[in-house]
Amino acid sequence: MHLSDAPHLRILRLLRDEGPVSRAELGDRLELTRPRLLAEVERLVAGDLIAEAGMAASRGGRRSTLVEIHPRLRFAAVDLGASSIDIEVVNGRLEPLAAYCEPADIRSGPKAIVQRVNELLAKARTDGVYERLDAVGIGVPGPVSFRDGVPVSPPIMPGWDRYPVRELLAREHGCPAVVDNDVNIMAIGERHGGVAHSVDDFLYVKIGTGIGCGIHLGGTVYRGVDGCAGDIGHIQVDANGPVCSCGNAGCLEALFSGAALARDALAAARAGESPALAERLAGADAPGAASLSARDVAEGAAEGDVACIRLIREGGRRVGGVLATLVSFANPSMIVIGGGLAQLGHVLLAEIRSVVYRRSLPLATGNLPVVLSELGGRAGVTGAAVLASDVAFEQAS
Amino acid sequence: MHLSDAPHLRILRLLRDEGPVSRAELGDRLELTRPRLLAEVERLVAGDLIAEAGMAASRGGRRSTLVEIHPRLRFAAVDLGASSIDIEVVNGRLEPLAAYCEPADIRSGPKAIVQRVNELLAKARTDGVYERLDAVGIGVPGPVSFRDGVPVSPPIMPGWDRYPVRELLAREHGCPAVVDNDVNIMAIGERHGGVAHSVDDFLYVKIGTGIGCGIHLGGTVYRGVDGCAGDIGHIQVDANGPVCSCGNAGCLEALFSGAALARDALAAARAGESPALAERLAGADAPGAASLSARDVAEGAAEGDVACIRLIREGGRRVGGVLATLVSFANPSMIVIGGGLAQLGHVLLAEIRSVVYRRSLPLATGNLPVVLSELGGRAGVTGAAVLASDVAFEQAS
Repeated sequence: MHLSDAPHLRILRLLRDEGPVSRAELGDRLELTRPRLLAEVERLVAGDLIAEAGMAASRGGRRSTLVEIHPRLRFAAVDLGASSIDIEVVNGRLEPLAAYCEPADIRSGPKAIVQRVNELLAKARTDGVYERLDAVGIGVPGPVSFRDGVPVSPPIMPGWDRYPVRELLAREHGCPAVVDNDVNIMAIGERHGGVAHSVDDFLYVKIGTGIGCGIHLGGTVYRGVDGCAGDIGHIQVDANGPVCSCGNAGCLEALFSGAALARDALAAARAGESPALAERLAGADAPGAASLSARDVAEGAAEGDVACIRLIREGGRRVGGVLATLVSFANPSMIVIGGGLAQLGHVLLAEIRSVVYRRSLPLATGNLPVVLSELGGRAGVTGAAVLASDVAFEQAS
Repeated sequence: MHLSDAPHLRILRLLRDEGPVSRAELGDRLELTRPRLLAEVERLVAGDLIAEAGMAASRGGRRSTLVEIHPRLRFAAVDLGASSIDIEVVNGRLEPLAAYCEPADIRSGPKAIVQRVNELLAKARTDGVYERLDAVGIGVPGPVSFRDGVPVSPPIMPGWDRYPVRELLAREHGCPAVVDNDVNIMAIGERHGGVAHSVDDFLYVKIGTGIGCGIHLGGTVYRGVDGCAGDIGHIQVDANGPVCSCGNAGCLEALFSGAALARDALAAARAGESPALAERLAGADAPGAASLSARDVAEGAAEGDVACIRLIREGGRRVGGVLATLVSFANPSMIVIGGGLAQLGHVLLAEIRSVVYRRSLPLATGNLPVVLSELGGRAGVTGAAVLASDVAFEQAS
């Protein structure tokens, strides 16, 4: 979504992000003439989008009244993962008033999942969190046609292709809705309340079950012609690598992702290369379904287990190689690493940095932070709330 | 440069791109009310930016007068290559009125080169091509800070770092000037008058002495935080490959570019692997400085020489591998191949396509043309003229 610069939208976004502000300061900050500002504020007050909030501290002259985003506003933020539903209901400042989180298999299909989302939101209403919603924002783990509000050929979401998610949510809740890819909303969230605050050009790299990249350029998310920009998990990094779920060989996420790491950890444990992993495998509750996870590898590495450290470094080297290419191409001002495997922490980060800094041109890396996400698991719902408020503000005009 | 949508700019661009149009049609096309349109046109006529151009054919009602971009407008378009200066002086429709082209070594430094550009433009004035220029647009073969109008750490342009190219040209010619990277202006040119006409999201890949990529996203060139976005020549494609001029090993342009192809062609000729190349090498004028070029390889391939075809296909495979990655990342709607090595033609193109279509996700390649540049060597000056006119229109308001 390209954000419009209409004055009423700038007012709403400023009040959303910064809280109560005096009319005088609003006019200064947004460089609006006093009559223009007062007219816009008048209109937004009449539309119940902003409200009076008492008097401002004196600035020497006449005291100015504060305005704030209307305390009645409510947005629903939904982050659908491959195996989870995360929901927050937030106020106009995007502060969470209630949160719901439960496991759910995205493969159970759109009807069941959207119905469960509606049930959780109905529960929030029953709980008194809201009377009516002003917008719903939802992220899904696959490509999305942002314009049409539908998933498009999402590989891990059988039955969801062109399912009218936006339309159904809008109808159910009687308000605007907006649908985006899960990694895009994470990038938006991290820019709103995380480490990429106010950064215009950055890449948000999610390393979890799969690998994806949110591309934030020139202050807005770039989604690509078909909504699949940033689908970097299927970039080939080793022509002789393992076969990927997509059918090609040696894709990035076939070599390093939650699933790949679990596979490699199990192999290392069984081959006797890793005392730490072997111990965790032996201690597993159900030996028949014995398995290891990224957490086991992270813990092993923290204990100094050489095989665990090697697994993380090899993964970091793969990711770093792809990111070096993307840095040469996109020349961003920051790279944020998020997703479940970000818990592998500084060993992973150090390896990624090392490859990116060595392989990209000095001009592009001279001042390029490569950092971990600050919001962690909350990046998605935070971004979905931002999108919901943006669409509510746009449509309210 | 993000293009503003102010009405006077939309009028000027439409007249630049389409020629004389009636006031009535202008109002319809740009969705402007009649009073607003007439006021804008009045102002542009008064400013000598547009002019009356007779009566339009009747559309049934009152006949409407045509307006056109002012026939007096003149823009200078300059394309500096590693070893050449190309200049066109164009009118307000961007039609060339005069062209100058000569060899020049960019390494002779900014003073000598900019002076030569000024001499050629002075010659054009003496020749009666223009009385005064309305803007100068120039492309240089290196990263550029578009905002500051200076080259930034350009690897093949010693002495040019932060040299005030824009300021000096503006002062010399008494008009606005604009500086950009050479590949960016090629992309802009190809979008204005070539195969990417009106395409909003595409990649222009120049394969010449070096390799670079112009990134056109959402209708505008994306230049990156430091002006070096699209610098894809130094992406590592083979960790065991030859050392590149940048100091790293196995960069794309160390494996496939004008210089790399000449090197590999010479090796093939000397190893007796290529009768076509050996014959051309023997026929060279100065045996002491015996060398082969991309043209020799293209001719050899056209004759069916197996080694020549192999060289082109190997190069296409390298370029295709990098482009497959960029397609997964950026999800563009077209890829345009230009630069000197585009003369290798359809053998090269077929190999690039094959790799891109095989390696990228089906959703991203389902409707992705990979095509040769239509403008060829004129893409650069065409884009420089577009940029010059854009900046003249912006500053005229």
